[in-house]
Amino acid sequence: MQIGICGLGTVGSGVFNLISENGQEIKRRIGREVTIAQVGCRRDHPDCDLSVTNVTRDIFDVVKNPDVDVVLELIGGADDALKLVMEAISNKKHVVTANKALIAEHGDEIFSVASKNGVQVRFEAAIAGGIPIVKAVREGLSANKIDWIAGIINGTSNYILTEMSKPSSDLAFVDVLKDAQKLGYAEADPTFDVEGIDAAHKLTILSSIAFGVPLRFDAIYTEGISGITAEDIGYARELGYTIRHLGITRNLKDSVELRVHPCLVANDHMLAQVNGVMNAVMVGSDAAGATMYYGAGAGSGPTASAVMGDVIDIVRTDGVHSIANLGFMPESLEAKRVMEIHEVVGGAYLRIVVSDKPGVMANISTILSHHEISIEALIQKDARGGDAHVVIITNTVLEKSLNEAMQELAGLEETRGDVASIRVAEFS
Amino acid sequence: MQIGICGLGTVGSGVFNLISENGQEIKRRIGREVTIAQVGCRRDHPDCDLSVTNVTRDIFDVVKNPDVDVVLELIGGADDALKLVMEAISNKKHVVTANKALIAEHGDEIFSVASKNGVQVRFEAAIAGGIPIVKAVREGLSANKIDWIAGIINGTSNYILTEMSKPSSDLAFVDVLKDAQKLGYAEADPTFDVEGIDAAHKLTILSSIAFGVPLRFDAIYTEGISGITAEDIGYARELGYTIRHLGITRNLKDSVELRVHPCLVANDHMLAQVNGVMNAVMVGSDAAGATMYYGAGAGSGPTASAVMGDVIDIVRTDGVHSIANLGFMPESLEAKRVMEIHEVVGGAYLRIVVSDKPGVMANISTILSHHEISIEALIQKDARGGDAHVVIITNTVLEKSLNEAMQELAGLEETRGDVASIRVAEFS
Repeated sequence: MQIGICGLGTVGSGVFNLISENGQEIKRRIGREVTIAQVGCRRDHPDCDLSVTNVTRDIFDVVKNPDVDVVLELIGGADDALKLVMEAISNKKHVVTANKALIAEHGDEIFSVASKNGVQVRFEAAIAGGIPIVKAVREGLSANKIDWIAGIINGTSNYILTEMSKPSSDLAFVDVLKDAQKLGYAEADPTFDVEGIDAAHKLTILSSIAFGVPLRFDAIYTEGISGITAEDIGYARELGYTIRHLGITRNLKDSVELRVHPCLVANDHMLAQVNGVMNAVMVGSDAAGATMYYGAGAGSGPTASAVMGDVIDIVRTDGVHSIANLGFMPESLEAKRVMEIHEVVGGAYLRIVVSDKPGVMANISTILSHHEISIEALIQKDARGGDAHVVIITNTVLEKSLNEAMQELAGLEETRGDVASIRVAEFS
Repeated sequence: MQIGICGLGTVGSGVFNLISENGQEIKRRIGREVTIAQVGCRRDHPDCDLSVTNVTRDIFDVVKNPDVDVVLELIGGADDALKLVMEAISNKKHVVTANKALIAEHGDEIFSVASKNGVQVRFEAAIAGGIPIVKAVREGLSANKIDWIAGIINGTSNYILTEMSKPSSDLAFVDVLKDAQKLGYAEADPTFDVEGIDAAHKLTILSSIAFGVPLRFDAIYTEGISGITAEDIGYARELGYTIRHLGITRNLKDSVELRVHPCLVANDHMLAQVNGVMNAVMVGSDAAGATMYYGAGAGSGPTASAVMGDVIDIVRTDGVHSIANLGFMPESLEAKRVMEIHEVVGGAYLRIVVSDKPGVMANISTILSHHEISIEALIQKDARGGDAHVVIITNTVLEKSLNEAMQELAGLEETRGDVASIRVAEFS
């Protein structure tokens, strides 16, 4: 088996160097060498010694190369990546990719053509970097009905929230983002990460391989962390919670939940312990119970580890296609309605700024009780200029009812501005 | 592919019922049904409806049955299990087992015969129950050099330490053990669990599949939790540590570390967050970095999940042997010396009871400094009858030097009784 590497950026250079550094260890495991037939890259990478490598500046040479059995799509992006992968497949080459957007948005089309051509498309590196979570879900837990997945799957967002959550910190989102950009933990244009789009791509894939449903990136609810304030983090801490950006998907009888957004996570929950750029995915299943997978979600080494794990799987099985791409036989995928966010049920954190007058708490309580929302915890704090902050954790409530209550709360004469809300994570 | 189940206890009954409950979900994944050709058990299990099942009271019928392709060895124990597995292999049947003692003590012999017969022997269920850790190490991280593994791999010990560590608790080991026995978390004879033998079996296997070294249960250092006192747990907490029973194995140039014993783990480390009967295994590797795998380490459902995951892997690959049993080609296994425990280097917690006289701290410090042991943290507390407790966390020290220092400390005129010591976990 020979591989062709397309793209020699952070991931591609990591893969190239991993093969030269660990080639002998890999051979000890699989009894064969993994060799690079060709590298396609626009320019050389300073960390890679390409002196004895067949290099082309046209990545499409790689998918045409008859020596290449497995194409590694590591160029990222959308159009070229899709074209490259489709051409590789029609040339009967296996594909390994780290491209979450490609799989989440075009996976159904790609997998269908791959099945017809008898080749594999593997994407362990697309989700949570070095953590073998695709393998755990598609293979390790294959005897289970999987009920839900909740994961910290965007390292940039988790880094920013961790920094904002340090007890000594009172930093605003924008300030921490700037630091993260300086440290290389956030892109110059951080939208994909901090607005939840990257996490949405990953969760879309996780949901499909867990439940056997088609990829539904078109229907996912996506909310990022740019609205989280230092104030909310402080109140959450006081109430025993940490704020994390989660991807949550749940398999219900006739529908699936599919949503990424910030969440209050109880401090003693494992996901609240996941700090900095680390990722963790918790999987709830009927036989194994809750299992969790933790590690570095990005970076050259961890992503290369995942890419090469896929390559080794293909080599070990001589390219025989033993596992359906989404972990379920294509004919067994079951289309389910994706729940609208207002249909979701869960607890909520509310922050209301009110003028500190007698009767205000009674008014708030009355509105909540009219919507059958009960209060699990409450803090009232004096704020500037005679105002007060009322912070509430509700019990489980339908999001639609919560939204109606929030509108009424915002309409109270005593209320200043909007009512802020953050969902509370509910799973075990 | 048809399976034969040998043993219908906690694990066997779990597997039997998992197949009937999740058979359709499994078929959605693999496109085929997993059917039970025969069950061998001394007596029926009250939770299993065996009315349409071919049942034999002689488990050896199962390995002779020509309809059986995969034998599930779920009887546990030693002699019969070995005989059964060897006979299954010589009859060209694949074997799936949950028997950690069998693999740790007889794996080399079993795997050698299995290779000759072209069958697989799989043992995901032998380590950490429902957590697919064998798969993660042998497959997910297969492109890495693995440097170390540290795991909480005995649920009984972790349950007892967790209960002893509750802030309100001042319970002794023996009291918590009694409670654990009542709750079914500890066996009537708890020796295997609380003295570390069960963890030693599991770590032996983990070490081999991580580093590609032969199974060395004969050489593992094993220490249990029966010596841990409520006092030590309290002092550790004061110093920012939680006491956990860990299995630690490390791959060095010419040797491997292989040891199970109690450890102080810094409170902010993920392994310190693993409570009750839960298990977690952290793997340090060169490309992926540190990854961790968390979940239920025992019980009918989690263990059945792991057993059936192995069965499904065999079915998916049509029994083609793609992965070497220990994750490395048999001819590539590299025998390495197992380090003696006194050669190990690490930090230590020391507790010394002394008569509270002037000069005692000077004497203690002098002894430590003679052995080039520096002090990272120190507490002195008054105890009963004019005695004082001196509690020290040392910096990294060779265990041999520490032992010598401890002997000298015990020999001081002011010292009452032995000096207690617990290792401090050092890995990231």
